Amino acid sequence: MNVLAKIFVTLKDSVLDPQGKAVTHALHALKYGAVSDVRIGKYMEVTLSANSLDDADRLVRGMCDELLTNPVIEKFTFELMEVSQ
Amino acid sequence: MNVLAKIFVTLKDSVLDPQGKAVTHALHALKYGAVSDVRIGKYMEVTLSANSLDDADRLVRGMCDELLTNPVIEKFTFELMEVSQ
Repeated sequence: MNVLAKIFVTLKDSVLDPQGKAVTHALHALKYGAVSDVRIGKYMEVTLSANSLDDADRLVRGMCDELLTNPVIEKFTFELMEVSQ
Repeated sequence: MNVLAKIFVTLKDSVLDPQGKAVTHALHALKYGAVSDVRIGKYMEVTLSANSLDDADRLVRGMCDELLTNPVIEKFTFELMEVSQ
């Protein structure tokens, strides 16, 4: 089966996000003063073949731990869905 | 009300994603040969105050058009949810 994994990577809450602060200031300058906070993360769509959703879950978790995220400062969540092609 | 907007920005399907290709190759080298494609995007969490969810929708759409995304090569989707603090 083909599986699409949507992976969301964000900085841990305790880690400062200077990029997010810069975007907040830029939004304020553009008259979006209603914005109180911005946190910037990464979003990845990984297509893979797997025997089952459990198998895909194990693979995606492994990829995130080994390559896609920095576990010292980042955390991740993901969603899996079966795709046709 | 306080609203949390989760914004997902991805390259349009017609735009090449060299970063995604590089990650695909790195995953193959790490024995994740099951991966057929990777697309890299951005994920942003924006906290803002708004009068209603409709109001928040309008604001977030404006921010994305004016600053957060490049409409020439990127597309975006977002989810809104009310938060307490």
